Amino acid sequence: MEVPKFKRLPRHIAIIPDGNRRWAQARGLEKHEGYDNGIIPGLKVYDICVRLGIEEVTFFGFTQDNTKRSEVQRKAFVDSCIKSVQELSKRDAELLVVGNTNSDMFPKELLPYTKKTKFGKGKIKINFLVNYGWYWDLTYAYDNSSDKEKMVENIASADITRIDLLIRWGARCRLSGMLPIQTVYSDIYVVDEMWPDFKPEHLYNALEWYQDQDITLGG
Amino acid sequence: MEVPKFKRLPRHIAIIPDGNRRWAQARGLEKHEGYDNGIIPGLKVYDICVRLGIEEVTFFGFTQDNTKRSEVQRKAFVDSCIKSVQELSKRDAELLVVGNTNSDMFPKELLPYTKKTKFGKGKIKINFLVNYGWYWDLTYAYDNSSDKEKMVENIASADITRIDLLIRWGARCRLSGMLPIQTVYSDIYVVDEMWPDFKPEHLYNALEWYQDQDITLGG
Repeated sequence: MEVPKFKRLPRHIAIIPDGNRRWAQARGLEKHEGYDNGIIPGLKVYDICVRLGIEEVTFFGFTQDNTKRSEVQRKAFVDSCIKSVQELSKRDAELLVVGNTNSDMFPKELLPYTKKTKFGKGKIKINFLVNYGWYWDLTYAYDNSSDKEKMVENIASADITRIDLLIRWGARCRLSGMLPIQTVYSDIYVVDEMWPDFKPEHLYNALEWYQDQDITLGG
Repeated sequence: MEVPKFKRLPRHIAIIPDGNRRWAQARGLEKHEGYDNGIIPGLKVYDICVRLGIEEVTFFGFTQDNTKRSEVQRKAFVDSCIKSVQELSKRDAELLVVGNTNSDMFPKELLPYTKKTKFGKGKIKINFLVNYGWYWDLTYAYDNSSDKEKMVENIASADITRIDLLIRWGARCRLSGMLPIQTVYSDIYVVDEMWPDFKPEHLYNALEWYQDQDITLGG
């Protein structure tokens, strides 16, 4: 696979793989049947990012908010997350799953990945949000310390660094509760296509757009 | 002034009035000369929102990050914020300025507005971020209480409610540190034009777009 050259790349990319249900419905399938088609796109993103030399990628797996959906949907997106993380663990990656494990919604199969682990040659840091919640993340800092100067280093997602570029598939332009502290300065790029319709060009277009954004960190 | 009709309106709109400096430069002016042209647009947004019956509007005045800019620029955007708030206080509004007052960067002229005050008939809640910082906002909760269940109600911006629609002028798609908790679920709409080039149509287009967004609050 050949990848284009870019003059300036983000260090850390976040992926919101939205639109699985709308993709399924548009094909006359049941909503939950979309999620299974979201696994291969994630592995393609992984491949491209390794080739480009991106340091860190964070995938929005599912949030605590998402678990309010019907059981058949919940089972489908949880299964997709499990399979995605297991597939990534067969590749070169430093894997970390972040989410609330004190809940039945957190799949036991992913517990071993909640401690950062190097697979193969490492090569790229991959974070995967599983049963993640913004409120859980921020208030977690209180359990660790009452020292407010250490808040950012004590949140549950403290091992996930600042996000430079957030790419969301499925045409919505919002964070849906993803990592409020790491996204305060992120450039957000929206792909109109649904996630199961992923094409490498979506990612390339986002990176091309990102090159022309100034980096001010709010300044 | 006639305003269009919408089938579904956001309860709370946030405004990031970006592009003042690029607007000035494009006209051969000095960067800081743009800010003065950002006052009237804010008053127009106020007028339209009152007519539409919007309950709450929050303006991104300036952040602690912004104060790292040159002194001439800083003076210019601080002056614009002072004038904007003073102008709004001559209208019907419940005004609240939110920001770190324990700093020379906070203009004394705006201290009286840091307590919510009703001017005229009230009619609309207007928040104005002045020397605001996301880190200051979140860690403020620690000073108030060590009870993590009360974190959200103890942040410095606790009187500002969840933002439904965030509109940013100046073509960038990012939050620049604006209210990380209130924006976790916000729909973000980007206007390519610079803020001093504000036209009512920008706001109408954003509201039209917002009507077609589904409201899931992350679910």
